[in-house]
Amino acid sequence: MIKDATVTARLMSLFPFLQGAPAPSIETFFAHGSLVTLEAGNHVCLEGRECMHLALVVEGSARVYKLGDNGREITLYRVGEGESCILTASCILSNIPFPAFAVAETAVTAVVIPAPRVTGWLAEWAVWRNYLFGLVAQRLSNVISVVEEVVFRRMDQRIASYLLEYGTPAGEALSVTHQQIASDLGTSREVVSRILKDFESDQLIQLSRGALQLLDPVVLQQRAENR
Amino acid sequence: MIKDATVTARLMSLFPFLQGAPAPSIETFFAHGSLVTLEAGNHVCLEGRECMHLALVVEGSARVYKLGDNGREITLYRVGEGESCILTASCILSNIPFPAFAVAETAVTAVVIPAPRVTGWLAEWAVWRNYLFGLVAQRLSNVISVVEEVVFRRMDQRIASYLLEYGTPAGEALSVTHQQIASDLGTSREVVSRILKDFESDQLIQLSRGALQLLDPVVLQQRAENR
Repeated sequence: MIKDATVTARLMSLFPFLQGAPAPSIETFFAHGSLVTLEAGNHVCLEGRECMHLALVVEGSARVYKLGDNGREITLYRVGEGESCILTASCILSNIPFPAFAVAETAVTAVVIPAPRVTGWLAEWAVWRNYLFGLVAQRLSNVISVVEEVVFRRMDQRIASYLLEYGTPAGEALSVTHQQIASDLGTSREVVSRILKDFESDQLIQLSRGALQLLDPVVLQQRAENR
Repeated sequence: MIKDATVTARLMSLFPFLQGAPAPSIETFFAHGSLVTLEAGNHVCLEGRECMHLALVVEGSARVYKLGDNGREITLYRVGEGESCILTASCILSNIPFPAFAVAETAVTAVVIPAPRVTGWLAEWAVWRNYLFGLVAQRLSNVISVVEEVVFRRMDQRIASYLLEYGTPAGEALSVTHQQIASDLGTSREVVSRILKDFESDQLIQLSRGALQLLDPVVLQQRAENR
């Protein structure tokens, strides 16, 4: 049960669908939701497990990924503030085990809703239904983008986009390891290191231990677009 | 409107969720659904278009795919008898344009439901809601499998699996072109041809124009599993 008025106000603004809900639905939401905190590095969900709760993230970020036999990983998407994991929702709704891993990348605070409520509210509550279907569409197109990326773009283009997406201004250090990039993009650390070294010798970036600096975002953008 | 008793009986057996529906819902379904037929090769949906209808396939098969800048394709999934395209459903529900292409691979007969009904019935009709959410879970895990395939498996393993999935008994001709395999798996025809030639020289398959024969499914299976 969530009672603290500061917390409920923050949740109403993070999850705007609640604002469109009738008062009794909002009461039910706070009555059955509970606030939990996970430390960074903890697994939120393991592949093949049954999903007992739907988590709506209040603070922090979780990464949803697939793990290959060879130990490689690829990130399917991240779940951040105001978002929720539709994989969990679709597992709850169709009774299938969770088809990926989810791990807290930072400390994560979330509202968790027990599975029976998730399905029950679908029938009773239009804004909840719309919220869940909206998530579905978003995640499905996220995962389709991953397919598109992996199939149609070369790894050097994808790494260039990745570095630009971090959005650090030129000159500022980007704190990311080669292994993190590899796990996000579904390749090996060796491939990432080789491409980053190519970028460095073209003076697009500068490498240092556990970090790198963008030197020339304009040319990096051209590399991302294969120009 | 669908009135023919033979047709309605066939639809009830192809879409079992209808059997669990109250009589007025079934009547509404047949009153607002119409039966359409598309020729093979026609596009069902174009990327970026708005979705006006949800199609439930009665006969035939449609292929949902992404098209890259380089003209390459990759199949996300197929929609066959008794199935429906959840991408369409999620587009209708969230008002986003269709993020891929869908083409009729064979002649396709389908029941089409206008978009406003698709959303309306969600609120009123539990079996419809469960049917749509079931589709979501299935398609999301289909697309996640594509990611997994593409990222974690070598192309020769994937082609071996692909040939085995067609399920033709050893010795019988499989009528598929190298280009079709390439478009399904997101690679170029040249790569497919090279790998098929390797399989042929290992006496796993025999190639002929527009067709091939499996000679040794057992060893092909080992190749698929990377043994």
